[in-house]
Amino acid sequence: MIRVQFKPGGQTGQVWPGTTILAAAEQLGVPISAPCGGRGRCGRCRVFAERGCAEPTQAERDLLTGEELRNGVRLACEAVLVEDSQVIVPSDSRTVGGKILSEDVWQDVALAPNVTGRVLELPAPSLDDQRSDAERVADGLGVPPGELQIDRRALAELPSVLRANGFSATVVMVGDVLTAVRPPNAEPCCLGAAVDIGTTTVVAYLVDLVTGERLATASDLNPQARYGHDLISRIEHVQRAPNGLDDMRQLIVDAINRLLAEATGKAGVRRRDIYEVSVVGNTCMHHLFLGLDPTHLAQSPYVPVTKQAMVVSAEDAGLAVNRAGSLYCLPVIAGFVGADTVGVLLISRIAERDRPVLAIDIGTNGEVMLWSGERLLVTSCAAGPAFEGGEISRGVRAAEGAIERVWLRDGTIGYSTIGAARPNGICGSGIFDAVATLLDAGVVDSTGRLLDADAARGLPEGLASRLRGEASDREFLVAENASNGDGEITFTQRDLREVQLAKGAVRAAVELLCAEAGIEPGAVEEVLLAGAFGNYIDRRSALRMGLLPPVPLERIRSVGNAAGAGALAALMSVEERARAVELADRAEHIELMGNPDFQVVFADSMIFPEAQA
Amino acid sequence: MIRVQFKPGGQTGQVWPGTTILAAAEQLGVPISAPCGGRGRCGRCRVFAERGCAEPTQAERDLLTGEELRNGVRLACEAVLVEDSQVIVPSDSRTVGGKILSEDVWQDVALAPNVTGRVLELPAPSLDDQRSDAERVADGLGVPPGELQIDRRALAELPSVLRANGFSATVVMVGDVLTAVRPPNAEPCCLGAAVDIGTTTVVAYLVDLVTGERLATASDLNPQARYGHDLISRIEHVQRAPNGLDDMRQLIVDAINRLLAEATGKAGVRRRDIYEVSVVGNTCMHHLFLGLDPTHLAQSPYVPVTKQAMVVSAEDAGLAVNRAGSLYCLPVIAGFVGADTVGVLLISRIAERDRPVLAIDIGTNGEVMLWSGERLLVTSCAAGPAFEGGEISRGVRAAEGAIERVWLRDGTIGYSTIGAARPNGICGSGIFDAVATLLDAGVVDSTGRLLDADAARGLPEGLASRLRGEASDREFLVAENASNGDGEITFTQRDLREVQLAKGAVRAAVELLCAEAGIEPGAVEEVLLAGAFGNYIDRRSALRMGLLPPVPLERIRSVGNAAGAGALAALMSVEERARAVELADRAEHIELMGNPDFQVVFADSMIFPEAQA
Repeated sequence: MIRVQFKPGGQTGQVWPGTTILAAAEQLGVPISAPCGGRGRCGRCRVFAERGCAEPTQAERDLLTGEELRNGVRLACEAVLVEDSQVIVPSDSRTVGGKILSEDVWQDVALAPNVTGRVLELPAPSLDDQRSDAERVADGLGVPPGELQIDRRALAELPSVLRANGFSATVVMVGDVLTAVRPPNAEPCCLGAAVDIGTTTVVAYLVDLVTGERLATASDLNPQARYGHDLISRIEHVQRAPNGLDDMRQLIVDAINRLLAEATGKAGVRRRDIYEVSVVGNTCMHHLFLGLDPTHLAQSPYVPVTKQAMVVSAEDAGLAVNRAGSLYCLPVIAGFVGADTVGVLLISRIAERDRPVLAIDIGTNGEVMLWSGERLLVTSCAAGPAFEGGEISRGVRAAEGAIERVWLRDGTIGYSTIGAARPNGICGSGIFDAVATLLDAGVVDSTGRLLDADAARGLPEGLASRLRGEASDREFLVAENASNGDGEITFTQRDLREVQLAKGAVRAAVELLCAEAGIEPGAVEEVLLAGAFGNYIDRRSALRMGLLPPVPLERIRSVGNAAGAGALAALMSVEERARAVELADRAEHIELMGNPDFQVVFADSMIFPEAQA
Repeated sequence: MIRVQFKPGGQTGQVWPGTTILAAAEQLGVPISAPCGGRGRCGRCRVFAERGCAEPTQAERDLLTGEELRNGVRLACEAVLVEDSQVIVPSDSRTVGGKILSEDVWQDVALAPNVTGRVLELPAPSLDDQRSDAERVADGLGVPPGELQIDRRALAELPSVLRANGFSATVVMVGDVLTAVRPPNAEPCCLGAAVDIGTTTVVAYLVDLVTGERLATASDLNPQARYGHDLISRIEHVQRAPNGLDDMRQLIVDAINRLLAEATGKAGVRRRDIYEVSVVGNTCMHHLFLGLDPTHLAQSPYVPVTKQAMVVSAEDAGLAVNRAGSLYCLPVIAGFVGADTVGVLLISRIAERDRPVLAIDIGTNGEVMLWSGERLLVTSCAAGPAFEGGEISRGVRAAEGAIERVWLRDGTIGYSTIGAARPNGICGSGIFDAVATLLDAGVVDSTGRLLDADAARGLPEGLASRLRGEASDREFLVAENASNGDGEITFTQRDLREVQLAKGAVRAAVELLCAEAGIEPGAVEEVLLAGAFGNYIDRRSALRMGLLPPVPLERIRSVGNAAGAGALAALMSVEERARAVELADRAEHIELMGNPDFQVVFADSMIFPEAQA
């Protein structure tokens, strides 16, 4: 048996020599997309494996460039493992469903949906039994007729469906309301969708609520980004543009409708069989989606229009699902701690632990959650866009050509890009790695300064030669041969400052929550990293740069898109909804703006940790 | 003092000689329309008074024709009473509001509406009080925030209204749902409308739900009549025409929206301040309005789609009122016993009596209700259109020129027409009078036959000369000088048969309900005549022709549009709604179609009573 480890997930296990990387990945539950079915034809299952594999096969030589082969790129379905190996799976080789889901709902949610289907077989009416169709159905359901609410449209369908099927039918209940009438054994009869509205990305999951099976997933960029990548720009658009709020709302409603069309198309089902949509999003996204003015979220005292869980008719919400369907929005906690955070609290189950746990959802805004064992504290911090590549001179979003991993190799810098393409910039996980690597190599000191020419003389030539410029214009050459403008990817002094501000904000939030709870940050039992981002960053890099408090590496766990998983949980179980409401109520929001210690802690938190002995 | 009696209402009282008819009418609560304010200018307050008045005034001579003056037509505002008198008020001289309302809601309904307005004065938010706007309002209402349902649109209005008014506002609650937010002291803040959808006529009443004041009334013909005056024709249209159901629904929805526009226009208020609409109608009208297929109402076993009270969003119902408003449809009892009957049961309070009471709502379909003192029995009978002038050779609807009263005068026939115009036909109340008069005069025998030439020799010449034709073509000349075709209004042998069929159906229903309850029909404490029609027919004529069981005249009472009054009661009080549901549950529907005695009782009921000694 040989040992193989997959990164960035860290899945590790033993396989027989001669196993392909794809087979090993399947064995260890690592999702790798193989559109051609693993037959060496499409060349899409690219991974990095610098050692431990047999020589490239003919198919690999045909489908990969010489440069790719030299850089260690392999096709997972062809490359055969012969020795211990470490395999890096670039983000675009991971399966979409797997990427978002299989890493997410690691807590099994018992299926108890609000939408249920009931098959009825009823006696036909006669002069001795003049019960109305509705009474007949109520009796069949065992509900007193006066207590059975029936949607008007469902009532309109009732006579013809009953009489076309010998007084049998499947009725769809949304909560206590009879919402649709279908022929008996119509399949699938009850679909639901969970939607995670991120500032940047919107994801929709389609679920068969009878079986609990996830049928399809679709995601896209949030089209509101045309009015700004950050929340404040979007709020300004709402305030300034005539119909700004309606515009913003329509953009996100249309985007969700497109995703639902895509997901139902993939699954070969009808949108009108979707009876319920559950939604999470930060408070601003939540407000914009519901057509609620977000203006006051951004102005002291940062007051939301509402915090409570909302049930709205799908039609009123503008969703192109069953017209009698329903929308469920998870509750929000505060102006900058939204339903997405409630989703993370819900699915992570942190408040059920015996010992303190920290959870961090990092995006443009960071949300930090601390379960002290007794109290559930939450806060938000403006991490800024640096972690997503924004405000970084060569920063790009995580897409083909983005440097996503950086490491020290043979006294100089090594890197890999998404799609193994020529580099065109550096994305979030690459930024983390770059900062950690530069700290480890001593190229950056703990105050965040790139070594000046004098100090750099002590560095190996492979690093020293990459330092250029002076003072605030000083920069480090990460990659040559780039496909963008001047053919180089550099990381600048200013970039380092942006990263310091961002990580300082998150770390300060962690410190202040722990102080409020009287807990030593390093003493938490586990640190959960939520958000798609949490999947991609290297935990070691996050620790090294001091984003996280100093805990052993194994206590840090990526939990994927936990917010989306929370929306799924709420879709799949009314008990989860009750729990979400209870968590939102229990969560104590700590307002950092009003905290007199914030500035001091923030300044301390910007410092990078010293190198470990 | 002199004595004056108004007909057809029968109001009787003493007034000082010299009182005008209009003043006497006001004194006795008889509604007479006087658009010019009683100043002798418009000539609209025409009444008949053959004796007891002073000579016509100059204004009367100017505004009335010589023929009208000869026929006893007077202007109520000008004619001065000098001796005992009997005044006939034609239907078009009665005030509309009065006609429909003042005679209706004779039971005071305590105001307890589902729609309420609450004025709130709230503290402004601060960093120490970051409650959401919704929480702030919930606290102001004294409701736990998690339990306060707020409509999405109301929530969208909330931040701006609160901040524009120093955190004061009026909130409109529809049931437990906060439905709108208005500036404090907005008036009127909560309007409601009650609608009675008749097969022929639709009436809408506009009410201020804060004060209980009725602001306006509007009525119009039901535009569905273009597809047939009776229910069966309309159901056939639904079955045959593509989109027949949608057409029918849209027609009535549009008609109601026009009436609401008219009523709000009259009252100078906004339609969007109407938050709730209550509706009654027979089961077919109820189904068509809600878009429910009425097909099975008309086919054995006559099963409605639903019987229960319905709450539907006003938007889904298509009503042009506040978009977050609500529709309440009273429950129905059976395929031909609808929400209109529930309205009659509700407002008449018959089921609270100690002794048996009969209520009859006569229209194209008749509904008969019997409270036995213990049981509440209801049934319907196909009275057919004869009572509304349909299927009668010279029958017309009650409009200008229709003969509405017939009596014996000086050994021959006398009559009056609506508007004192030249006669163009005979309407329902005239048909009743004609039959009763012909029976009294012995022109018709108890089997319903017009006397043949031989037998007619015993009649006074003034009657005998009016009988013409033979056998089934025999007819009686009611009026000459008619404005229609051949200048004559006749009442034929065939017309008599139609009346017999109609009155036989109603009387048979009365007999069978009484038999079911073990009650002697003549022993009921009161007979209530509901429906606008009940206002216009002469009670004595109804008794004389045997439509009603033999009870003393004073036990018969017209209760006006009780169905519409029931809709008003349900609009004005949630307790009335609970009572309506309870009455619909308690009512036992007796299906005459399945009753083996029906044909025999029906045949007996067609016979006219013998003349009283």
